[in-house]
Amino acid sequence: MEFLSGVKPQTTLELKELQDESRMGSRVRVNGAVHSIRDMGEVAFVVLRKRQGILQCVLEEGCPVSVKEIREGQTVEAEGTLEKDERAPYGIEVRVQSIRILSEPSRAMPLPVGKWKLNTSLEAKLNYRNASLRNIRERVKFRIQEGITRGFRDFLYGQGFTEIHTPKIGAKGAEGGSNIFKLDYFHRPAVLAQSPQFYKQMMVGVFDRVFETGPVFRAEKHNTKRHLNEYTSLDFEMGYIESFEDIMAMETGFLQYMLRLLKEEYADELRILNVALPKADQIPMVRFDRAKELVAEKYKRTIRNPFDLEPEEEHLIGTYFKEEYGADFVFVTHYPSKKRPFYAMDDPRDPRFTLSFDLLFGGLEITTGGQRIHDPKMLREKIEARGMSEEGLEQYLAAFEYGMPPHGGLGIGLERLTMMLVGEDNVRETTLFPRDLSRLEP
Amino acid sequence: MEFLSGVKPQTTLELKELQDESRMGSRVRVNGAVHSIRDMGEVAFVVLRKRQGILQCVLEEGCPVSVKEIREGQTVEAEGTLEKDERAPYGIEVRVQSIRILSEPSRAMPLPVGKWKLNTSLEAKLNYRNASLRNIRERVKFRIQEGITRGFRDFLYGQGFTEIHTPKIGAKGAEGGSNIFKLDYFHRPAVLAQSPQFYKQMMVGVFDRVFETGPVFRAEKHNTKRHLNEYTSLDFEMGYIESFEDIMAMETGFLQYMLRLLKEEYADELRILNVALPKADQIPMVRFDRAKELVAEKYKRTIRNPFDLEPEEEHLIGTYFKEEYGADFVFVTHYPSKKRPFYAMDDPRDPRFTLSFDLLFGGLEITTGGQRIHDPKMLREKIEARGMSEEGLEQYLAAFEYGMPPHGGLGIGLERLTMMLVGEDNVRETTLFPRDLSRLEP
Repeated sequence: MEFLSGVKPQTTLELKELQDESRMGSRVRVNGAVHSIRDMGEVAFVVLRKRQGILQCVLEEGCPVSVKEIREGQTVEAEGTLEKDERAPYGIEVRVQSIRILSEPSRAMPLPVGKWKLNTSLEAKLNYRNASLRNIRERVKFRIQEGITRGFRDFLYGQGFTEIHTPKIGAKGAEGGSNIFKLDYFHRPAVLAQSPQFYKQMMVGVFDRVFETGPVFRAEKHNTKRHLNEYTSLDFEMGYIESFEDIMAMETGFLQYMLRLLKEEYADELRILNVALPKADQIPMVRFDRAKELVAEKYKRTIRNPFDLEPEEEHLIGTYFKEEYGADFVFVTHYPSKKRPFYAMDDPRDPRFTLSFDLLFGGLEITTGGQRIHDPKMLREKIEARGMSEEGLEQYLAAFEYGMPPHGGLGIGLERLTMMLVGEDNVRETTLFPRDLSRLEP
Repeated sequence: MEFLSGVKPQTTLELKELQDESRMGSRVRVNGAVHSIRDMGEVAFVVLRKRQGILQCVLEEGCPVSVKEIREGQTVEAEGTLEKDERAPYGIEVRVQSIRILSEPSRAMPLPVGKWKLNTSLEAKLNYRNASLRNIRERVKFRIQEGITRGFRDFLYGQGFTEIHTPKIGAKGAEGGSNIFKLDYFHRPAVLAQSPQFYKQMMVGVFDRVFETGPVFRAEKHNTKRHLNEYTSLDFEMGYIESFEDIMAMETGFLQYMLRLLKEEYADELRILNVALPKADQIPMVRFDRAKELVAEKYKRTIRNPFDLEPEEEHLIGTYFKEEYGADFVFVTHYPSKKRPFYAMDDPRDPRFTLSFDLLFGGLEITTGGQRIHDPKMLREKIEARGMSEEGLEQYLAAFEYGMPPHGGLGIGLERLTMMLVGEDNVRETTLFPRDLSRLEP
């Protein structure tokens, strides 16, 4: 009988290992995809794309392998001598003695993915996603996205949160609205979850602190640079809060942790995109109505509607706090009650406003959160006052009837946060396979 | 201007902190939900449910707080003296001096959640999910589930995998079949992803090694103990493999890592359920046809169909390897080609079989995986030979046309793995909010 006893040792080296001083001058084996070829006649450079970056391989005169056999898109395994070369990426190159072709492409790349910058329209990048993502600068955005998600989870594990998986298919959505995708579930009407809101609240009654990282679905007919119809939401919900500031404090802690993780573990990736990380050591907190006033005063605007925040105003709030306090992030608090869902906790001192907040990053909303109502009577009154029905809310209400601690939470749009962090201006740039009004493929 | 500078220090103590020897005899503040009450007249025990477990609070004679004010389901904050008591959970208790009620329930629990074991039907547990999950033994299964997912990700980060998020809504599924949920996407037909298969393969061309942990959707009309219509899939896909054994070796590495993580970080949880972890140091590997023979010989069965594995046979393979080798896991390899999808790599030595495998745990399939076809011509031939159309596969095929390394991967059903690990016999027991033929709520 044969047995497996764990991961097999790799016979090829990765970039981190190749940068080890002690290996210089030794014979190494590497693999990768042929990313670009520069044939100079007497010498040819074959750049391999590896998972951590690119590696220069040199075919010198007298090399038994002819560059004529090498084509972009092949995957290969090469053997040769590892040498230092200051002009090469990471200061290293492999002088090739042999190459084995592992696989062959059958079509030329539709985009010049081997170039450093893909100067291509977003439309082309999305249409040829299999090609564009092979560009080093395009793909590396998703490494940074990984760092954000990883930081979110690791930070919250450390804070006593439990990870949950809640269903994405459900019965008729109680939060309602027209922005819900409908489907047929064995001849019963069903909907796709527009957020894990109700489930994560219910789970506060179980684990006190929970989080989820998963897809959410919004059938909104927006076609803006900031909206997607499916995106990844980083959600948490925490019980036993003293005030809704606890939630913002927790998010501040996450941002600090995540930025440190990126700095330490994703330094190569940040360098490739030339990203300067924002600061989150001190995040200002301003009331919604006060923020509107500050912006109106400084930028000579009139306040048209005291209960609404226009995208232009949001942007100017970002500018204001950058100019006045050097702040990249701002918490805007106390949103008007009528702009928040029924479960939002009203401010007992002025129930026209809620104990809620948005977090703006560079003037763009990347988080919505706040304290929720935990008292079942108060929740019923709010539902009634809004002219809503309790139908479909029975299970949600049961959680409160059985007892729930004071609690609150938030949702972070992963693609938006990535977009702002890497300095893109369209959320599709930081989504592997975006879904929007016109795009259902690839 | 006010600023937030990070997580606020908690003024209450958690169970880990309360177990600290140096705190014995000191005054502590704790919070939690009233889990059960035992009024003995002169003394009353109020057990609080906290996120890590339960905490015994004692209301002695002369305590300013009357047990009459305390009700199951309240959430409270209590102050008192921390003392050792061998009879109490974790050997500690709080002798209460004051209690503040944070929230009130409005309905009695429909199930005796305060009991150690919830002797209730599965049906009742699922109908009253908000109640049943508050039982300590019910909820703790999902802590172990967290450990599995966490172990999967942490292990793969360490092996150079990149985490991806692929869309769950897509155009007409090319993998096809009747087991796909359909929906209307802005007046276009769309489907829910039954797996991230095509996307993760496409991403091998980008990052070499990728993984995803997310929901998948199967409109299968099975109503068995092992099937769900929505579940969480732990998927990975890896490039530059030498053979399909590399994939099984990687999974073995994951299992070893995950079991160690559970042992080290989830010891309390394992103890609550009395779980004895399985062994994964040496996992036997047996061919599909050989496994059938072994079982037929030992258990005196006739092989009815050499190209099919009945659930009963699967179970007996598990029994066989437990009896003969003390093995909890078995890799069954070389599944018949006609039982595998078109993208499975046929065995060049006998194309009636594939370079694929299932992993059985206690005789139940918890993983399906294998090597995939990476050559675009071979893939087209297979599609044609199966009488399938390339329609809808254009983007998938493009990845291969642009060049793809030899690769393979697998998908693990999280709820099934959890079920087997904690010794349940229905996958609904280890799903927070299961979706099946009859269940769309809560």
